[in-house]
Amino acid sequence: MSSLATALPANSSVPANAIYKNPKASVDDRIADLISRMTLEEKVGQVMQGDISNWLNVTDGTFNRTGLVDSMSYKTGQFYIGYPVPWEWVARETLRGQKYLVEETRLGIPALVQTEGIHGFLIGNATIFNSPIAYGCAFDPDLVRQMAEVIAEEGAALGANHIFAPVVDLAREYRFGRVEEMFSEDPYLSGEYGHAYVVGLQSKKVAATVKHFAGFGTPEQGLNTAPVHGGEREMRRTYLPAFKRTIIDADAWSVMSAYHSYDGIPSAADYHLLTEVLRGEWGFKYHVMTDAGGSDKLCNDHGLCEKGDKRAVTMLALTAGNDVEMGGGSFNYRAIPGLLEDGTLDIEILDTAVSRILRTKFIMGLFENPYIAAPEDQWKKIIHSDNSVALARKIDRESIVLLENNGVLPLNKKKVKSIAVLGPMAHGFMNYGDYVVYKSQYRGVTPLDGINNALKGSNTKVTYAQGCERWSNDQSGFPEAIAAAKEAEVAVVVVGTWSRDQNELWAGLNATTGEHVDVHNLNLVGAQADLVREILAVNKNTVVVFSSGKPITEPWISNSSAALVQQFYPSEEGGNALADVLFGSYNPSGKLSVSIPRDVGTAPSYYDYLKGGRYVDAGAIYENGTMKFGHQYVLSSPLPLYPFGFGRSYTSFSFTNVTLSQTNVTADAIVTASLKVKNTGKVDGTEVVQLYVTDKVASVVVPNKELKGFAKIALKAGQEKTVKIDVDVSTLAVWNTRHQSVVEKGEFIVSVGDSSESLKSKASFWVG
Amino acid sequence: MSSLATALPANSSVPANAIYKNPKASVDDRIADLISRMTLEEKVGQVMQGDISNWLNVTDGTFNRTGLVDSMSYKTGQFYIGYPVPWEWVARETLRGQKYLVEETRLGIPALVQTEGIHGFLIGNATIFNSPIAYGCAFDPDLVRQMAEVIAEEGAALGANHIFAPVVDLAREYRFGRVEEMFSEDPYLSGEYGHAYVVGLQSKKVAATVKHFAGFGTPEQGLNTAPVHGGEREMRRTYLPAFKRTIIDADAWSVMSAYHSYDGIPSAADYHLLTEVLRGEWGFKYHVMTDAGGSDKLCNDHGLCEKGDKRAVTMLALTAGNDVEMGGGSFNYRAIPGLLEDGTLDIEILDTAVSRILRTKFIMGLFENPYIAAPEDQWKKIIHSDNSVALARKIDRESIVLLENNGVLPLNKKKVKSIAVLGPMAHGFMNYGDYVVYKSQYRGVTPLDGINNALKGSNTKVTYAQGCERWSNDQSGFPEAIAAAKEAEVAVVVVGTWSRDQNELWAGLNATTGEHVDVHNLNLVGAQADLVREILAVNKNTVVVFSSGKPITEPWISNSSAALVQQFYPSEEGGNALADVLFGSYNPSGKLSVSIPRDVGTAPSYYDYLKGGRYVDAGAIYENGTMKFGHQYVLSSPLPLYPFGFGRSYTSFSFTNVTLSQTNVTADAIVTASLKVKNTGKVDGTEVVQLYVTDKVASVVVPNKELKGFAKIALKAGQEKTVKIDVDVSTLAVWNTRHQSVVEKGEFIVSVGDSSESLKSKASFWVG
Repeated sequence: MSSLATALPANSSVPANAIYKNPKASVDDRIADLISRMTLEEKVGQVMQGDISNWLNVTDGTFNRTGLVDSMSYKTGQFYIGYPVPWEWVARETLRGQKYLVEETRLGIPALVQTEGIHGFLIGNATIFNSPIAYGCAFDPDLVRQMAEVIAEEGAALGANHIFAPVVDLAREYRFGRVEEMFSEDPYLSGEYGHAYVVGLQSKKVAATVKHFAGFGTPEQGLNTAPVHGGEREMRRTYLPAFKRTIIDADAWSVMSAYHSYDGIPSAADYHLLTEVLRGEWGFKYHVMTDAGGSDKLCNDHGLCEKGDKRAVTMLALTAGNDVEMGGGSFNYRAIPGLLEDGTLDIEILDTAVSRILRTKFIMGLFENPYIAAPEDQWKKIIHSDNSVALARKIDRESIVLLENNGVLPLNKKKVKSIAVLGPMAHGFMNYGDYVVYKSQYRGVTPLDGINNALKGSNTKVTYAQGCERWSNDQSGFPEAIAAAKEAEVAVVVVGTWSRDQNELWAGLNATTGEHVDVHNLNLVGAQADLVREILAVNKNTVVVFSSGKPITEPWISNSSAALVQQFYPSEEGGNALADVLFGSYNPSGKLSVSIPRDVGTAPSYYDYLKGGRYVDAGAIYENGTMKFGHQYVLSSPLPLYPFGFGRSYTSFSFTNVTLSQTNVTADAIVTASLKVKNTGKVDGTEVVQLYVTDKVASVVVPNKELKGFAKIALKAGQEKTVKIDVDVSTLAVWNTRHQSVVEKGEFIVSVGDSSESLKSKASFWVG
Repeated sequence: MSSLATALPANSSVPANAIYKNPKASVDDRIADLISRMTLEEKVGQVMQGDISNWLNVTDGTFNRTGLVDSMSYKTGQFYIGYPVPWEWVARETLRGQKYLVEETRLGIPALVQTEGIHGFLIGNATIFNSPIAYGCAFDPDLVRQMAEVIAEEGAALGANHIFAPVVDLAREYRFGRVEEMFSEDPYLSGEYGHAYVVGLQSKKVAATVKHFAGFGTPEQGLNTAPVHGGEREMRRTYLPAFKRTIIDADAWSVMSAYHSYDGIPSAADYHLLTEVLRGEWGFKYHVMTDAGGSDKLCNDHGLCEKGDKRAVTMLALTAGNDVEMGGGSFNYRAIPGLLEDGTLDIEILDTAVSRILRTKFIMGLFENPYIAAPEDQWKKIIHSDNSVALARKIDRESIVLLENNGVLPLNKKKVKSIAVLGPMAHGFMNYGDYVVYKSQYRGVTPLDGINNALKGSNTKVTYAQGCERWSNDQSGFPEAIAAAKEAEVAVVVVGTWSRDQNELWAGLNATTGEHVDVHNLNLVGAQADLVREILAVNKNTVVVFSSGKPITEPWISNSSAALVQQFYPSEEGGNALADVLFGSYNPSGKLSVSIPRDVGTAPSYYDYLKGGRYVDAGAIYENGTMKFGHQYVLSSPLPLYPFGFGRSYTSFSFTNVTLSQTNVTADAIVTASLKVKNTGKVDGTEVVQLYVTDKVASVVVPNKELKGFAKIALKAGQEKTVKIDVDVSTLAVWNTRHQSVVEKGEFIVSVGDSSESLKSKASFWVG
């Protein structure tokens, strides 16, 4: 290392008027100036990730100076702070780390201060929002923008300036444990959400990381990090659009590569994807980082080099386009100096990587404002504010999907005499999705709490019985629950899946969803199904609530319950949000962000299957055991039980015919669809008007339909409004057989409706 | 059409010494000469398929001259004869059609006479072999070669000269109804089988059709003809090798394109695959034909053109490389003259297509020997000969896989006092796979028959009870079966899936496997599982036999039965073959051609998953309801219950360490692995020694291991033999990121064992 190092700029002091220090200089000039002043060690430091636990004892809060100095000797570009520790520890040691860099290193380059935040800033007592799969059902990007602002503000209050979110992978393989971390099965909805998240986060000068680039959501066998099957065309049509919308249109300041391989190329070694597409085609200028331990996997798992060969890992990951190596692995990028020295690696590749992370830092204003934490006396005002908690409740209630209702809902607070609240997810812990901090389960409003809150001051009697543990087949608690159900006018039984906080999850405690927790079917686990069955048998006014991180396949519950409510993993206000819907103080408007199949064996169920797929000649097994033989499938149906975009309301809506602003259009046109939507029922409500487009004839096989726009409108009872939805024709490009992205001539059919299967009106435009 | 037609050679008589009529002229010269003499109509006639039913009334056998002349006016290249009619009808009308072409048309070009034959010539009373998925378990290509010879001879006896087989798709998606038509999940085994089939068939001058090109076996949701997800690398590594081995190495005389789309390109419109790869890279010179109705699907299903647009279909299919359009659809190729006339289609494309089918006809000697049918008095000698039936039995018994055995097997004919033969697949019909002729189910040796045959002359009492219908949950037959089981010393219960003959299947009669019969799980249907459970409860010596066309996932049977035997869909000698194994007159040597998963929700289960896949941290639900929580999966395991290549014997074998003929090799080397295998048990037996190769480090992600050779050896008790298995190093090429096929330098690990999971010895070679 010595020879190369001495060839680089001398370790001299830096003048105060250096260009890179001048906020008025252009970012390009600042980068060039700073790079020209950096030693090799300083460059390598930028492309590696440190960790606050190197100098903060996360158990007792003590500071370790040696650890700080050691960490900052080669992992200076960024450090991770996502630990379940008191606010003051994080703020203090983040500040100390940042100050060390700014004041005690030669060039004073501040660090990206990083943590998680897919549904809330990852620290104790921050606002916990519902999981992405849940708020995906709100069909409301603006709420997500607001949520991201809260996450940014709460994180920034303690010094975090970089959040590893949003996840714009697609939830299309439900066995995969991380379904709950994704917004939707749909590319368009995911892109709109990703975009809104980035805009919200970065409006507060906190950098987003768009992940996991790309195609990570559909691993073989549903197993975490397993290979993904697909070709270039599926990548272009299905997986990349949400990334492009999020990364480019929202100008995201970083991207994370993924663990899996796609058609035999590990994402983290995919030069085509990380460089040719992301940088070359799209023009992304900021940095890409590996996922934790993701670089190690290149050799240890994917077999692209001998196990433990750090030099090989570095050459693969860095040259493919991973500018920064996350920790959680072997710190392979420490091999960079040696690789430069023996001529294996060209210094320009390192300089390019460094320039990209510096660009992120300059663009976010980090050099001008490295110490972003709020004064301690403001933390309580900023973190977990009443407004933020109210926003969590608002998003949560708008995310709840009413799947079935025989009229039992909404419950009338004044009339209902008694409610039995039952089931293992009804009370006792908060059923959060993954990526919440240690012990979060003990904080928040459970369904029982929410129902009790809603009934404060009423005469309704509320009883509660757990019925069973979520993780057991033990039915010894059934009699109490059944007795409670029998005695009550209405039973609300809450069952589902469960995840764990970041500590418990990785400690291996039982769970049925979450990162590295993959399932082989989508049924209720343990005694839960039997509990529901027995409650249904004794109370005909039973409302079943699925509290889950993914679709649950128990179709018989749809047929036998009085109402069925899907609440994907809740916010800390989950119980209140649920009560808002149950008692009709909010008329449910949630629409499924993922289709719900009948059984794991009918998967995948996404609505936008390619033309030529999903023939239906359904069979069935009836309750009495009689079988009706079909062919596709012999004894089931390949259609989902509930399609993407589906959700009921307490009112009804009518749609007039859709008209288009133009019908003969260019490939770059925006076509505006217009229709009137009327609330034809007796209560106020909100509808999500969905617009799907079908490319009638194409040179390659395209999806049978694709969501290309939606509008969420609140309508008073009897009210009618005109809805306008824009369609960006350029997003209808195919990846043709010549490997070009082209919007082809011909007819495009626009269908508008209230789910992907209930399309009420059609019109066409023609690209000329 | 007129103007073009007159521009072509005049409709004059052809001299007797025309080059194309001279068998001593080169095939190229004969083709050129013949093409130069053909009118447009004659050319179009070659690329369309007729049907014997155009002139044979398949109900009463009468001949219709008008139908013949009409059919031969534009569908002269080939005609289909696969109907369930008497031999003499087929032979007579085939001869008539062929004579018409040879003697009554100007150029006298004989037709390809076509039918099905994946496990037997498709006509009544021909020899029915077991299904491909079954004989795949024999690991014996030479038996398949012999079978194909029988199929060719039986077909040729009545005039068939072209069989639509073999299927070298891979059985990797078990919900798909056509799993039974495929040899295996494995590319290598499928290639060896396809090769053997083609060699056998074509040695009798009967043309093979290798199908369905390519990647057809893994449709989305398991639905027939649905889209397939995959990229170029998976196509090259996984799907194409079996095709290349079969098409090129065995010099197959035709190929069939497939119904599905792969990464958005319909196989039947895939110029890259059908022309650039198949012709350009591989040098295939003969003709490709569409599947029945497959051309129509391009517009009607895949959306590449407006529905019903024959001109568009023709341009797509013909220019992609489908030289011949099969019937079963709209006869789109009738649009060719119009397309030529208005200049849309270039005559050279048609001429190329015609030249390819003529090449097939010349190479197989059809011009010299158009009338291949045997004299009527020889039919009974040729068709369904004793030798052929014996071969069917031999293949069938070598295909049976012993999955479990607690020692109850083999049954001793002299000692066993009584056997209860039970279950809906035990008797009453033959449980054949699809692609058998109408009413085949009534002909053949059932399990009950086979057991009775084996016990002729013994004192063993055999009772039989059906127990239940295969298609019903009705348990009214249980008491009889349970009583029989209780009284007998041994119970043999035969359960499984069922398919139908070609007529019943397409008439829509109930079935659980076969073409267009797709399932959403792999469990026993109806009352069968309960029947097994109740029989197991009363007879501890219960042998369960799975008679099926795909894996069955009832793991509890493995744990609770005395023995478990997998007999995939049988030959007409199925019952005798089963009895051979049950009584030990044949020591089972079958090895699973497909892995058997624990549940449909754990699929896919193939052993050659890419590196980085299939992490295991298995959970389980125990019989008493206790749950053990794992992570991959939470309550199951991603590992198959029985791996590819697995099968037990009544004896045991030991393997010495493997040695390699060379360890530093070139990319085109053949490495010979040697080891000694010894029968260490007390009875004679046969072992399938399997050789797997792992590319230790590669520039792209490769399978964790791949079968690259095997040897099947019979060993007397105590006998030891040296086994030599060749590895063709060139088959270890990767499809690199530069889209090149390269055998990369480095270490390759050779593992030898008796299944894909039980690898007993390893050695390495290095490509330099």
